[in-house]
Formats: sequence, structure tokens, C-alpha cells
Amino acid sequence: VRRDEAEALDAADPLAFCRARFRLPEVLIYLDGNSLGALPVGVPAAVADVVERQWGVDLIGSWNVHGWWDAPRRVGERVGALVGAAPGQVVVGDSTSVNLYKLVAAALRLRPGRGRVLVHGDEFPTDRYIVQSLAGAHTATELGAEIAVAVRSHVDYRTGRLHDMATLTAETHAAGALALWDLSHSVGAVDVQLDDAGADFAVGCTYKYLNGGPGSPAFAYVAARHQGRLEQPLTGWHGTAHPFEMDRPYEPAPGISRVLTGTPPILSLAALEAALAAYDGVSMAAVRAKSTALTELFISEVDERLPGVFGLASPRPAEDRGSHVALAHPEAYAVKEALIARGVVGDFRPPDIVRLGFAPLYVRFVDAWDAADRLAAVMAADEWDRPAYRQRAVVT
Amino acid sequence: VRRDEAEALDAADPLAFCRARFRLPEVLIYLDGNSLGALPVGVPAAVADVVERQWGVDLIGSWNVHGWWDAPRRVGERVGALVGAAPGQVVVGDSTSVNLYKLVAAALRLRPGRGRVLVHGDEFPTDRYIVQSLAGAHTATELGAEIAVAVRSHVDYRTGRLHDMATLTAETHAAGALALWDLSHSVGAVDVQLDDAGADFAVGCTYKYLNGGPGSPAFAYVAARHQGRLEQPLTGWHGTAHPFEMDRPYEPAPGISRVLTGTPPILSLAALEAALAAYDGVSMAAVRAKSTALTELFISEVDERLPGVFGLASPRPAEDRGSHVALAHPEAYAVKEALIARGVVGDFRPPDIVRLGFAPLYVRFVDAWDAADRLAAVMAADEWDRPAYRQRAVVT
Repeated sequence: VRRDEAEALDAADPLAFCRARFRLPEVLIYLDGNSLGALPVGVPAAVADVVERQWGVDLIGSWNVHGWWDAPRRVGERVGALVGAAPGQVVVGDSTSVNLYKLVAAALRLRPGRGRVLVHGDEFPTDRYIVQSLAGAHTATELGAEIAVAVRSHVDYRTGRLHDMATLTAETHAAGALALWDLSHSVGAVDVQLDDAGADFAVGCTYKYLNGGPGSPAFAYVAARHQGRLEQPLTGWHGTAHPFEMDRPYEPAPGISRVLTGTPPILSLAALEAALAAYDGVSMAAVRAKSTALTELFISEVDERLPGVFGLASPRPAEDRGSHVALAHPEAYAVKEALIARGVVGDFRPPDIVRLGFAPLYVRFVDAWDAADRLAAVMAADEWDRPAYRQRAVVT
Repeated sequence: VRRDEAEALDAADPLAFCRARFRLPEVLIYLDGNSLGALPVGVPAAVADVVERQWGVDLIGSWNVHGWWDAPRRVGERVGALVGAAPGQVVVGDSTSVNLYKLVAAALRLRPGRGRVLVHGDEFPTDRYIVQSLAGAHTATELGAEIAVAVRSHVDYRTGRLHDMATLTAETHAAGALALWDLSHSVGAVDVQLDDAGADFAVGCTYKYLNGGPGSPAFAYVAARHQGRLEQPLTGWHGTAHPFEMDRPYEPAPGISRVLTGTPPILSLAALEAALAAYDGVSMAAVRAKSTALTELFISEVDERLPGVFGLASPRPAEDRGSHVALAHPEAYAVKEALIARGVVGDFRPPDIVRLGFAPLYVRFVDAWDAADRLAAVMAADEWDRPAYRQRAVVT
């Protein structure tokens, strides 16, 4: 398409108004919102208020008067509304890795006759490592009678493949196992429907499409039907029924609160809470529609300008794809660096993937068009072929 | 003593200059820094910079250029310097509860022939619950041949009793067990010497005397001699040797980094890092000296003005006491509320404790004197005897 056609798509975009909800450096085309989401406009003032007034002036009383105590549940409800979870099933706190540990352990206890956990070899490292930590050598890659719980990413962190949650959950249940979904690369960009899919458990990041800020606390979902019997091993005082009656033996809180452990990082949680306002009045169906249109436009433009230059590591059918596009190239790292030099920020995933995320709330169709255009320029002039672009930073 | 004698102590206080390192509401006598430390002056600007410039402008690149990746280790070194730990033994991340789980589990693996964990029945709830989660019924309150690890608070959260770390660690080692110290109520107020005491492991809060802000991430100490063999169960990607070579099997990072798990909450970590500047140029010996002088003055004044009204739940000898004072009274909750109405902020711990913390960096001798004076006024007029003061808030 021509660039003015991309401009026309932006003009007709029902979510175009959302871009103003972010502070974005105008010189950048930021296609790494799948790794660290952009800064929502309301966050600086919200965080400053928590620091200067709530902490600085109201001090310890803020646990009550400013609702710090309930923040993990309150923010959890906001996240739950974005992933198709009825109230009372999501809390926010700890990291995705820690939440995964709690819920895989809990799932193993709910299926005491079964000791294996399904996890694929190409899952995100934490997911594989945590499963191995809990199940030892008893991991598997296929469903079977010994599987207690299947751990799957909804969207693959590398390829962007979107899995069919409802179908895979049903297959998992038919095999007698529980289904745990890692939503890190789908929440906020894909129309997730946990309750409708019959999911048992879910975890996910909040610093990617949800824009909660670096390392903002993760979320955990436990279907209401499991909560009464749920036993998770990280039995900290915030997850108990009577946290301030300190002589008692451990008694898990009723409901989803029993997933909580220690004191949550309130500043990071406050940033996330303010960030979620970017989703006010936005339907996830509209977000998903824009997301697929963006990735479709980008892939088409790359196909047209750079035939045969990249392998498309992402699924070609839009319905099988999340909100990022993975292009395979032997010099992927250097290509990513050369793109950054042209103002297009993506990232690299080994061994050979340039990963470009299209956050639907703030990436425009012209951004997708320009990104393809600049990528074509990088490749036409072999701009990636410089020693400086091959020097890998710690975080790639 | 007379109030002008307390004023003279402040005039002679070598740490008096530290109070200017905090923003404190002038109308309050804040004696709850043992629960939530006051706001250090440098924190608001440091947090705003992380939010607005690092996150908002530099975005994903900040993991490298602004040192987010190394923050758990970098801030860990700052904390380590305050607890007598040589470099390379402390990291910051997760909550105290989560860190405790990791290290108790690791200790059990280091002592495979022993399955019991020592923990006392009056320990802070999380400590008891986590031990029970890992050791089941195999908890004990005395050292013995089956004990793998002894979990003890350095300073008791309720009474303020300060335990003799070196002696108890030696006794623990003599029994063939490892010693894990919870420093939540001593770090930043007591002159902790982990290396000299021969401690094996330690965990602790950073939002009390270290003033890191609500829910700021906790720390974990592992003595260098154990790090090479340390296996902890929360095997997230931040604790691996090659976090960005994502096809590898789990391989723990060398050194203390293997204690890390998932992505840390950078905003909360940045607040803590800025807060630790309040300890620049301050010796922990001087902090300890002022701490004991403050609690000594307060206890003397209470003894003199209110003989027999309160039980002293804290040890009377200053060398056995941390930096807070616990007064026992049947109406402790209401007394605490009445004190707040007079501008003195302490807290309540069940069943009958008014807890008053003397953070040595910002509490003055006149504050200790005034607090005792106002407590005497509250008791003289039975000001605590109002229904409103008996209504308990969520966080007490």
C-alpha cells in the first residue's frame, strides 16, 4: 500500500484516541511494547502522589486510608476485566516466575495421583525452569494419564504464535489435567477469555502491553471453583485469613487472596494501577482487531519490499498470531541494531529473531508502514553490516 | 530528666545532621519507622527520573544504559555494607517471605540427612508459615541432630528482644545445622555483623529502618562459602547464568545472583536505592549507640511518670534490645489510637502491645521525651477510653 493509505487507516482507527494516553518520544517508532510498554500519561503524577503525599505525609496510615492493603485485589480486578475473568479471581503481586511457581505447585496438589507437568521445550525459560524445579525429570510434552497440569504460553514469546486457549484447555481437561496459561505476551493485546475457555490458572506480566512500568508486579488467576481447595507453598502473611492476629497457625485467606505472599511493592503497583486507565472505555475486541490489522500491514509491506530476505517465524494467518512479528535472519542482532539507528526500536531473541511488537493502543498504521520502509532501507544498503552492531548488550 | 536535658542530648548528637535527610511532617512524632520508614529527601526526584526519563524516554534501553539489570546486585552491595557482609553476598528482590522460602529450601538441600527446621512459636507469622510449608510437621524449637537450619529473627518483631547472633550461630553450627537470620527489625538500626558472626543466610525488609518505601523489595544474604552449591527452588530466568540464551537448560548464575528469580520491581528498587543515601557517611556503631540511648531515655521516662501502668515487654538491659520498645497494656489498641490523636504515631501488635520504634536517623531525644510526656497525659486522663479508639482498622 502507499503511505497515504496507512494514514487513512489511522484516520479511521476507532482506537486512535488512545495514543494520547501515552508519553512517547516523537522521534521513535517504538515497537518494543511487548517487552516494556510505553509510559501512560497519568503515571508520573500518580506515583509522585504515592511517594510524596501517601508515604511522605500520611506514612503508615496509608495502608488503610489510601487502600494499599487492598491494592493487590483492587488492581487484580482491573486486570481480570481485561482477560475475561469474573470478579474475585485475579490478584497482582510478585513476579510472573514466582506466581507460576505457586500455581504449578498448587495444581500438583490438586491432582495428587499425577506427578507430571506438561511444558514444551521452546517455552520461555522461566516457565521451563520452574516446572523442572517442581516436577524434576517428570516433565512431558504431550498430554497423558500422568499429567497433572499443562503449562502453556497463550502467545509464544519468540514466534508470536497464538494458541487456541479454549480447544487446548478442553483437550487438557479431557485428559484429566488442569490448564495453566501464561498470558505474558497476550494480555492487553489479545481478547483473552479465561472464564469462557474454562482455564484453571493463569499468570502474566503487566509491564508489556499493560504498560505497568519496568518490573511491575505480575498477576495470578485462579478459577473460582479451585480457590477453596487451593494450597500454594509460598505461605506468607499477606495470604492468610487473619494477617494481624499473629499468634494463629497458618490459615489461608478465603478466595483468591490466598495466592498472595509478602508485602507487595506499592510504588510499582501504583504505577500499574494508573497505567491501566489507558484501557478505560476500550474493548478488547477492538484492540485485537487493530492488533491484527497492524501486524498484517507490516508483514505485507515486508513481503512486498523484501521478498526472501527474512523468514517469517510468526504464523502467516492473522488468527494464529499475537501482536508481535518475528522475522528470522542470520544477522538478526545486527539488523535490530541498525533499525534502532533509524529510529525503529524492536528487540532480538536468539538465535535469529528480530522481534517487533505492535502495541495497539499507541502504535499507528503509519508506524507499521514506516518501520517496513526503514527496514527495507537497512537491508538495501547492508546498514547492519558494522562491527558496532554486532556487540551484544546485556539485555538484548 | 527535664526536657532541656533531652534538648542537650540532641545538640550533642553526632547523628543529628541525618534528620535533614528526611521529609517529616513537623506535626508528628513518628515512632513507626520500624514498620514504614520515613521518606528520604532524595527519593521523589530519583523515582520521577526513573519514571519520566528512564522509562518514558529511554524505554527498553534503560535495562542497559540506566543499570536496571544490575540493580538487584548493586543495591544489594549497599545493603550488605550495612549488615557486615563483604561484597558479593547480598541481592535485593522479591519480598522477605519469598526470600525466606528460597533460603530455607536451599538450606534443607545443603543438609540432606536432616529434615527438621528450628523456628520458635512466637516468630513473625511468615517465618513460621514458610518453615511449615517446607518442613511440614518437622519443625522444632530446640537444636538437635535432625535440624538442618535454624530460622531466627535477630530482633523480635513484638518484644524488640535482640538475640546474640554470634553465640547462637556458633551453637547452631556446633549442632551441625545452618543459621538463617531474619534481620527485618534490626537492619539499619542495629550494628549487624553477618560475616563476623559466621551466619550462613539472612533475609530482611528494606521498608522499615532502611526507608525504602512501602513494600520495597527485600534482601537475601548467602555466605560466599555456600554459594557454589546453593540450589534454590524459585528458578526464574533472572537467576540463570545466561538469561538471554534462551534455549539452554537451567544453569544457575555464579555467585549470589542465583538467588534471583523474576523481573524485579524497578520503581520500588529505585526508591530504595535513593533511600540508602541516608546512610552515607554514617557508622552503624553510631546508629546503634543512638538507638539504645533513645530507647533508654523513653523507658526511663515511662517508668518515672507511669509506674506500674504498663508492663515492659521489651528487655530492660539495653544490650538485649533492638530499636523499638514494647509496652504491654490490656487496652493497648485504644492507647495507641489515643496517642495518635496526640500526634505520636506508634502501632499495635496483638494481643496487648503498644509498639514504639525509634529510628535513629531521624527520631530526636526530645521526640522520645515528648512521646513519654504525651503518653502520661493520655493515661492520666484515660483518653484511650473512647469507643472510636477501639474500632480496629485493617492494618493495625
